[in-house]
Amino acid sequence: MLASSAVFRRQQFLIRSLGGFGDCTHQNRRQQIKAMSGTSMEADAENILRAITPSLDPKRHKGQAGKIAVIGGCREYTGAPYFAAISALKIGADLSHVFCTKDAAPVIKSYSPELIVHPVLEESYSVRDEEKKFTAERVLAEVDKWLERFDCLVIGPGLGRDPFLLECVSEIIKHARQTNIPMVIDGDGLFLITDNLHLVSNYPLAVLTPNVNEYKRLVKNVLLAEVDEQDAPNQLLSLAKRIGGLTILRKGRADLICDGETVKSVSIYGSPRRCGGQGDILSGSVAVFVSWARQQGLVIDGNLATSPKNPTVLGCIAGSALLRKAASLAFENKKRSTLTTDIIEFLWRSLEDISPAH
Amino acid sequence: MLASSAVFRRQQFLIRSLGGFGDCTHQNRRQQIKAMSGTSMEADAENILRAITPSLDPKRHKGQAGKIAVIGGCREYTGAPYFAAISALKIGADLSHVFCTKDAAPVIKSYSPELIVHPVLEESYSVRDEEKKFTAERVLAEVDKWLERFDCLVIGPGLGRDPFLLECVSEIIKHARQTNIPMVIDGDGLFLITDNLHLVSNYPLAVLTPNVNEYKRLVKNVLLAEVDEQDAPNQLLSLAKRIGGLTILRKGRADLICDGETVKSVSIYGSPRRCGGQGDILSGSVAVFVSWARQQGLVIDGNLATSPKNPTVLGCIAGSALLRKAASLAFENKKRSTLTTDIIEFLWRSLEDISPAH
Repeated sequence: MLASSAVFRRQQFLIRSLGGFGDCTHQNRRQQIKAMSGTSMEADAENILRAITPSLDPKRHKGQAGKIAVIGGCREYTGAPYFAAISALKIGADLSHVFCTKDAAPVIKSYSPELIVHPVLEESYSVRDEEKKFTAERVLAEVDKWLERFDCLVIGPGLGRDPFLLECVSEIIKHARQTNIPMVIDGDGLFLITDNLHLVSNYPLAVLTPNVNEYKRLVKNVLLAEVDEQDAPNQLLSLAKRIGGLTILRKGRADLICDGETVKSVSIYGSPRRCGGQGDILSGSVAVFVSWARQQGLVIDGNLATSPKNPTVLGCIAGSALLRKAASLAFENKKRSTLTTDIIEFLWRSLEDISPAH
Repeated sequence: MLASSAVFRRQQFLIRSLGGFGDCTHQNRRQQIKAMSGTSMEADAENILRAITPSLDPKRHKGQAGKIAVIGGCREYTGAPYFAAISALKIGADLSHVFCTKDAAPVIKSYSPELIVHPVLEESYSVRDEEKKFTAERVLAEVDKWLERFDCLVIGPGLGRDPFLLECVSEIIKHARQTNIPMVIDGDGLFLITDNLHLVSNYPLAVLTPNVNEYKRLVKNVLLAEVDEQDAPNQLLSLAKRIGGLTILRKGRADLICDGETVKSVSIYGSPRRCGGQGDILSGSVAVFVSWARQQGLVIDGNLATSPKNPTVLGCIAGSALLRKAASLAFENKKRSTLTTDIIEFLWRSLEDISPAH
């Protein structure tokens, strides 16, 4: 249906160009991106961000602007869950929790006193076989105590691939789903669900945020195919339809967002630096924006008349736009040295530029 | 008695208006708050803060500007006790201690080398049943060694709700009371005393600083009623009288402060951000100001002729005013991204604006 329109074919051509201009100059690239933003596939990202961001109301009390939890952080990885959780706060959530292993907790806590860090997950090396059942139940009980309070979960940043830990996280996903909590799944969370699609399929509050490699693996496992750059939007549409009912944000030079119904792109110019951790900012941001979009309900004003209505899609568009803008500002300042922490420092400026607090 | 005066009825009307102006503009709200500050319920907060802040005298030695201790910090929470303890120092206390569990101590120490952190509290999971009596005695002995040196305790930030730990804290409160040390009770400390009111009732040096939910629970337990927003000052007065002889700072859009005799409000414009941790700045600040107010004795000059005389009330008023001013400055700088650490960075500027060092 979508593929039949002439406009869509033009969009496809532009997306293909975007993926294939190899040696062209920066200037050309910007012009092409600019040209594409005139098409209907390019999301009206800044207006969407403005529309779903709640006004700052002195009548509100702590927690009402969002309570986010990141499930991630193990013996090896501690930066990723920190980046996701602190980004959620810097965008405007009131409370940001991290559920990680007991080895990771003191380190993540030490990054910032703003986070609430629960040392509850366990990896195989610290649990004897005969204790596994009991330990898994304990982990789940610890997370369950908190689950209903959260407006969105981010599952995966720095989670690692320990089989016992991933088993526990599968159960957390099932409980979150029963409780109707939105989930943004990234990093090792994607590794988990790619082999266990039943965990997220037909759950409209799930968002997957794969990068190039994670996307390749998803396409291979679900569509039994290679990634087709020439027909990227259609392939993404097929993938989302095949898994069923969730939203996928495919990260790339232009981010493509699809809920199985429509495909939207965000191609605001970001930064040419590809330092690790930017995906974690994105997952934390999408979590906040998805919960705001759900809170705000269907936001339609004159500018948003043609906007998608699905809150997970709106949240992805806003998160993508904000990260790109912050990365661009950070790059202007730190050039080749730009790191994820620099980008996080510009979240406030980007947010203020797009959606001023007053 | 209070309720019978026409002035008081007018104040009640203004407080009701403050709670009910729904969609009115920021400008209107400011005007209403301004109007209210003309009434006698609005505290002359900046003058009070100035009056109780000691002059910086080169003849004084370490410790004379205040020694504060925070009782809080457990496996899950480390940010809250840090915020309270560092705020006390940044306001002008000379020494700031934290008494926390051994898991929390290294993390809190890592936030700042300025704090003295004692890893002495214990949670149930680390103590066998047969060791509990002995462990409780040891914990109490460790705290007792220090207790007399402190000018004020802050009990509760990040304390958690472990039953064994709370039992030990009950004993610490009893000892502090015997030693006549002021106590600011917040967070999980309020959870503890709401079910054990005898710990603080009729202790004039106790200050409770409940937020919306903590206040609801107090009103329910003590007055067997729901919170009455329409008659907030009278209900607060009843609550303080019923518990007996302590001071309550009810946090809200306007903070209401009551010692069972008078009700004062502080409604200086702060920040619309409701990120977690701001209450910890307040408890640390109130601790310092209460100890200063006690040190300075009854401060009365021309401007303070109608001021309350109770040092716990004066401390609450000053703490509330300072937090609001710092939050407002932080918000001007960081907008939607404003976090508790940003507000702490503006404590010095706010203090300097209200009560210049020279």
